Amino acid sequence: MFRNRTPTIATVDGHAFPKDIRLHYTPRASDVERVRTLVTETGFFRLDEISIAAELVEERLKSGHESGYHFVMAQKQGNLAGYGCFGPIPCTLTSYDIYWIAVAPKFQGKGLGKCILGEMERLIREMGGIQVYVETSTQPGYASTRRFYERCGYRCEAVLDDFYEPGDGKAIYVNRLVKR
Amino acid sequence: MFRNRTPTIATVDGHAFPKDIRLHYTPRASDVERVRTLVTETGFFRLDEISIAAELVEERLKSGHESGYHFVMAQKQGNLAGYGCFGPIPCTLTSYDIYWIAVAPKFQGKGLGKCILGEMERLIREMGGIQVYVETSTQPGYASTRRFYERCGYRCEAVLDDFYEPGDGKAIYVNRLVKR
Repeated sequence: MFRNRTPTIATVDGHAFPKDIRLHYTPRASDVERVRTLVTETGFFRLDEISIAAELVEERLKSGHESGYHFVMAQKQGNLAGYGCFGPIPCTLTSYDIYWIAVAPKFQGKGLGKCILGEMERLIREMGGIQVYVETSTQPGYASTRRFYERCGYRCEAVLDDFYEPGDGKAIYVNRLVKR
Repeated sequence: MFRNRTPTIATVDGHAFPKDIRLHYTPRASDVERVRTLVTETGFFRLDEISIAAELVEERLKSGHESGYHFVMAQKQGNLAGYGCFGPIPCTLTSYDIYWIAVAPKFQGKGLGKCILGEMERLIREMGGIQVYVETSTQPGYASTRRFYERCGYRCEAVLDDFYEPGDGKAIYVNRLVKR
């Protein structure tokens, strides 16, 4: 899903982002359906997961930062090319979860996923975060996702067998941010 | 927190419950403050955790079963002696989380915690659940909690270092329910 070939890059907010990508951090009402469409287009998520992706945007629109959901929306010429959603884990001091990261098929293969992840980590660091967690499936179909996180500095800290369903475990990856 | 000495038992809903304990499963408005008081009295939880315990009851009152929060409330002579809160983990087929289990200090040491946990497992089994997860701290102060879960058939499947805060990791315990 997140192939990282030689990207065409431009600098946005200190990061090397693919050319012509513009970032915004405050979802608008139209982003509920844009996120739903993007996540569906990837062909990577089940219906219940797609609903949750859209619900997190709605929750943010309703409750603002209080929702605990923060976003990095990457647009190109008015289209949503990719996005990430993260937030502090309740009852922890310095732990954050990456809830979502998705790149529209026609924008994949340009390093955009890695850039969105890097931008989320920059924001997490600013918020005082140290541990960044991301969860994914242990199934063979998610091998490219796991490799993506490993290339981005994440390591698998735990595996919960049969978590998603019998035969489909959860891998918990963590990246420990260093202060810059 | 959950010592399991020789309990005074009576049978409630097929379980061996301490004498005179009555169960109910549908929180009432008054349970928000009763849960807050009980959780505070244990002396075991931080303020932000106590707020969350009460919020889960509110969420259930607002959204019913749709909230995803299910309860076992154990009363004795009108007082809340202990309670548990659990629910299906979103995007999983057969996994459930035990979110809370707490017993008021004056009702501890009678096996009530173990009975409430057993009753939650019975309900989870009825709902089709297999994996039951519970999370706790790796710190020495939680050794009795960890021993409680181990005595109840849970095993530590993963540890996430520094999860709650630097030096305070999260232990993830799981119990795999067998069909009866």
